[in-house]
Amino acid sequence: MSGILRLSHAEVRVPDLELALAYYSEVVGLVVTHSEADKAYLKGWDEHQHHSLVLAAAPTYGLNSLAFKVVERSELDRLQDRLVAAGISTSRHEPGELGEASGETVRFLAPSGHTIDLEHGQGQVGNGLPLLNPPPAPDNLVGMHPPRLDHIFLLCEDVDAITAFFTDVLEFRLTEQIMADDGHQLTTFLERTHTPHDIAFLTGPDGGFHHLAYWVDEWNDLRTAADTCAYHGIQIDAGPTRHGATRGCGLYFFDPAGNRNEVYTGGYHFDPDDEPTTWTEAEMGRAIFTYKGQVQQSFMSVHS
Amino acid sequence: MSGILRLSHAEVRVPDLELALAYYSEVVGLVVTHSEADKAYLKGWDEHQHHSLVLAAAPTYGLNSLAFKVVERSELDRLQDRLVAAGISTSRHEPGELGEASGETVRFLAPSGHTIDLEHGQGQVGNGLPLLNPPPAPDNLVGMHPPRLDHIFLLCEDVDAITAFFTDVLEFRLTEQIMADDGHQLTTFLERTHTPHDIAFLTGPDGGFHHLAYWVDEWNDLRTAADTCAYHGIQIDAGPTRHGATRGCGLYFFDPAGNRNEVYTGGYHFDPDDEPTTWTEAEMGRAIFTYKGQVQQSFMSVHS
Amino acid sequence: MSGILRLSHAEVRVPDLELALAYYSEVVGLVVTHSEADKAYLKGWDEHQHHSLVLAAAPTYGLNSLAFKVVERSELDRLQDRLVAAGISTSRHEPGELGEASGETVRFLAPSGHTIDLEHGQGQVGNGLPLLNPPPAPDNLVGMHPPRLDHIFLLCEDVDAITAFFTDVLEFRLTEQIMADDGHQLTTFLERTHTPHDIAFLTGPDGGFHHLAYWVDEWNDLRTAADTCAYHGIQIDAGPTRHGATRGCGLYFFDPAGNRNEVYTGGYHFDPDDEPTTWTEAEMGRAIFTYKGQVQQSFMSVHS
Amino acid sequence: MSGILRLSHAEVRVPDLELALAYYSEVVGLVVTHSEADKAYLKGWDEHQHHSLVLAAAPTYGLNSLAFKVVERSELDRLQDRLVAAGISTSRHEPGELGEASGETVRFLAPSGHTIDLEHGQGQVGNGLPLLNPPPAPDNLVGMHPPRLDHIFLLCEDVDAITAFFTDVLEFRLTEQIMADDGHQLTTFLERTHTPHDIAFLTGPDGGFHHLAYWVDEWNDLRTAADTCAYHGIQIDAGPTRHGATRGCGLYFFDPAGNRNEVYTGGYHFDPDDEPTTWTEAEMGRAIFTYKGQVQQSFMSVHS
Repeated sequence: MSGILRLSHAEVRVPDLELALAYYSEVVGLVVTHSEADKAYLKGWDEHQHHSLVLAAAPTYGLNSLAFKVVERSELDRLQDRLVAAGISTSRHEPGELGEASGETVRFLAPSGHTIDLEHGQGQVGNGLPLLNPPPAPDNLVGMHPPRLDHIFLLCEDVDAITAFFTDVLEFRLTEQIMADDGHQLTTFLERTHTPHDIAFLTGPDGGFHHLAYWVDEWNDLRTAADTCAYHGIQIDAGPTRHGATRGCGLYFFDPAGNRNEVYTGGYHFDPDDEPTTWTEAEMGRAIFTYKGQVQQSFMSVHS
Repeated sequence: MSGILRLSHAEVRVPDLELALAYYSEVVGLVVTHSEADKAYLKGWDEHQHHSLVLAAAPTYGLNSLAFKVVERSELDRLQDRLVAAGISTSRHEPGELGEASGETVRFLAPSGHTIDLEHGQGQVGNGLPLLNPPPAPDNLVGMHPPRLDHIFLLCEDVDAITAFFTDVLEFRLTEQIMADDGHQLTTFLERTHTPHDIAFLTGPDGGFHHLAYWVDEWNDLRTAADTCAYHGIQIDAGPTRHGATRGCGLYFFDPAGNRNEVYTGGYHFDPDDEPTTWTEAEMGRAIFTYKGQVQQSFMSVHS
Repeated sequence: MSGILRLSHAEVRVPDLELALAYYSEVVGLVVTHSEADKAYLKGWDEHQHHSLVLAAAPTYGLNSLAFKVVERSELDRLQDRLVAAGISTSRHEPGELGEASGETVRFLAPSGHTIDLEHGQGQVGNGLPLLNPPPAPDNLVGMHPPRLDHIFLLCEDVDAITAFFTDVLEFRLTEQIMADDGHQLTTFLERTHTPHDIAFLTGPDGGFHHLAYWVDEWNDLRTAADTCAYHGIQIDAGPTRHGATRGCGLYFFDPAGNRNEVYTGGYHFDPDDEPTTWTEAEMGRAIFTYKGQVQQSFMSVHS
Repeated sequence: MSGILRLSHAEVRVPDLELALAYYSEVVGLVVTHSEADKAYLKGWDEHQHHSLVLAAAPTYGLNSLAFKVVERSELDRLQDRLVAAGISTSRHEPGELGEASGETVRFLAPSGHTIDLEHGQGQVGNGLPLLNPPPAPDNLVGMHPPRLDHIFLLCEDVDAITAFFTDVLEFRLTEQIMADDGHQLTTFLERTHTPHDIAFLTGPDGGFHHLAYWVDEWNDLRTAADTCAYHGIQIDAGPTRHGATRGCGLYFFDPAGNRNEVYTGGYHFDPDDEPTTWTEAEMGRAIFTYKGQVQQSFMSVHS
């Protein structure tokens, strides 16, 4: 299991932790695994590890950090060496040091201005189903109840540079890119899991956070999620719709703090020897939203 | 990219190649990439490599061989060394030597009696969509048109032994198992792609072939596939239904030669540190078919 | 609004009323509107009238009666006259006389041995949504929660005769029929709502009850219903599958007393000037279950 | 079969008949039943009657007329009498007089400025399936291929008046209404088929045409329809999304002439004794588009 396995979790800021916790547990339907005064830990129902979302009480909304899962401890060392060789400062953290159930972690600040953790050995809590003769699903799921985290979408000024960093140093593979007419990358989609993206970068301010996406299994689940938003008065930003890039389908909406969420499904399998897909700037609207063929202002301007 | 990436393809015997080719291209809706006197090569529409199914004219039905994809050439050497160290005879084949578009290959006979290839560098043909500003799908898909191969289900006498071989030598991970009351493994599910299974073994005759499964995206696609069978008079064996093991949903049916096919969807993500699920012999019916809770005779007895 | 509007409700016998009530409210997800010592009244969540199912405590399972809704009071008189003219004994019942919220009713024993009510003015209770600015659905639905009743399937010895009675006297229209090789009708499908069937008759013992079917909106709901059965250990008889006759899709299962239930979706619009469809006896298996092409023994033999 | 059965067909103007015919047959996937120099006749694949859409070559886009189906010839007379009694001028037309396969027709100009036909006995052509042992669907369907027409949405200045006319004279039932703060009806939904609407009126210019909607069976069909639009470069106006009023789901898009089309699914059964639902002007956005909670400018301003 060389290198990074997958996106593990993200720590997101919310001014009203209690409200955010109610939203993420009852509307999104995540499972709360631990809660303390200024932090709460949640996961998709079918995730076995302790958390895929950490809510941190803070005056503003936005992203504190994101983490990738590394299965082999020796790979943590190897990746830390690659980071150091690339001129990146790293810090090393013992299990439990970075929060409840946290594993051994290499932390660094990416050139895009995002704090990134490579984590080995986060605590496992199981998915709520017995390991002997289980039913297909637990009986107590509420709201959208996505089974697991899928991807994260960030912003930074130099998408070309961060894409090179992710492919060269962190060994991600480029699946799709939207190219500006001047030859720069406007948006790039990068994977470690042979899906269309585990992380993507959109041109914008350094350290910017566009959305965190949970997986759902089918197009019907997107309607259920949208109905859930409608029922609870949650503001929908776009969808249910299909993306041109990734060919997946998604629904965008906002948590009470203003962080954008997505539930996402579909996409494709990507082999390491498959060729990336390129979108021209003129077709960016269709690359993001296939059906409308254009991106509403809010999608580009509202982020943190 | 250490070790085996995924199931690559299978070579299946058919007495009437022309009839089989019509069935697999028009009913299943695979894409024919090459055809010669006694062999034909097909793939799911969204696969980029040359083939995931090879049809070989032969007096009987059944499986000639299956192949796993290895991305790094150096990993071919390493895996060959592991096989040799485990006392397995291997042969090495140059690109093109084992058939149209075949890559560099290590071939061996597994203890289960199946001929297995580890292949690096099979020819790539693309998925029929342009690499610049593509539409969501080609416009000329027919029949069930699954996008890609998913898994293969084999039989052998000693499931414990082949499972140990696949985990110890080929570095697969066990996701689920059906245990006989006497402590032996009746069925095991093994993965390299973090899905519920890339290959599974059921107790039966050595070298036996139960089914080859293509992926479809949603439960609705299983109904479309079943309607397609009904329209063309194709014999359905079971489904659409849900499996207990893998939690996926599938439809089983037979090609004109008698080889069992499945279209499959669903399942879950499996991390290397997740625990396998165990089914008892008493619950085997539910492990295979959740809804009926029992396995019809044909499912266990009809294979090759 | 001339004649019969639609199937209104059925009264079904259950030996253990408490158990049946738990099943129909928690597993099927019907809404209980009234309950007394030996009777309980339930409805699909989106039905506005008081009940579509009445459970009656009794030593055996089976059907006590079924009822059709008549919108105009004057049509009750006209239909009663038609029954009398056809030699059928009828009785007339005041609102409330035949049970909680019952409307004015003409009751008769059909030639098939079934007690049938024509009811005008059953009590209305609403569908649980406000009449001002409603959300798409209530938030407290559990189990399969079908929105409404769809059809009933009965048995009798002389299907030709009961079909003639339903078309000639009760003004139903024939949509489909399965013909025996000897020229008799084996099964007939009859409608008042321009759907494939509101009632159907299968050859069998007089007064026999095959199943009561609730509507669900989509194929996905049938999987949810099957998962619900699996979770609660409810015995599934067949499906999810497609019927040849009606072109609809359904799932069959049994209540704890042994009465067969169906959840059903699909079908088509049938105009009064459309031609009925005919199935031959040789194709009866496909007429019932398109995918298997055969009817399992239990489907024909298990009824009341 | 008293009164109007259902919406039968609409005649729509298109400047380029050949282009419109290509669009409606290949993209929408309607079946062409007759075509002449300046008119073409089409139907949904599962409709048995000759046409549900007539395309008429004309310099502009918009609606020429709409027609309701009347099953009983005597009901034509009765409805004509009601129209005359209401002060409406009517004309009577023999079969074939108003176009290919047209039935006996009462034509009148509604107070809303729309030409409306009540038609009895349009020619029947069947749905393309055999009447003996049919498969579930024809094998030659292309594009969105909706099975049948669902409803029509018109504009007029005085929605209160046309609603009263449709309920009082034509015996429609009101299912939902959006009320202006000043007490007038902004939008009304009217039915004859026990569905949420066969016709609806929105405040706007007299004689205005908002959209014609075909039925599809499921939410998944809306994604297929949207993918079809994307593939063919057809402009999507809104959706796939859910409506608050009718609770149905739909996709809006434009034909090459500028006429708005919808494919629609869902909704509910409406009994004649059910209460209508009311939406306030403040909630009109949610009544039209539940998920966005607002109506884009184009939806209100673009019509004919």
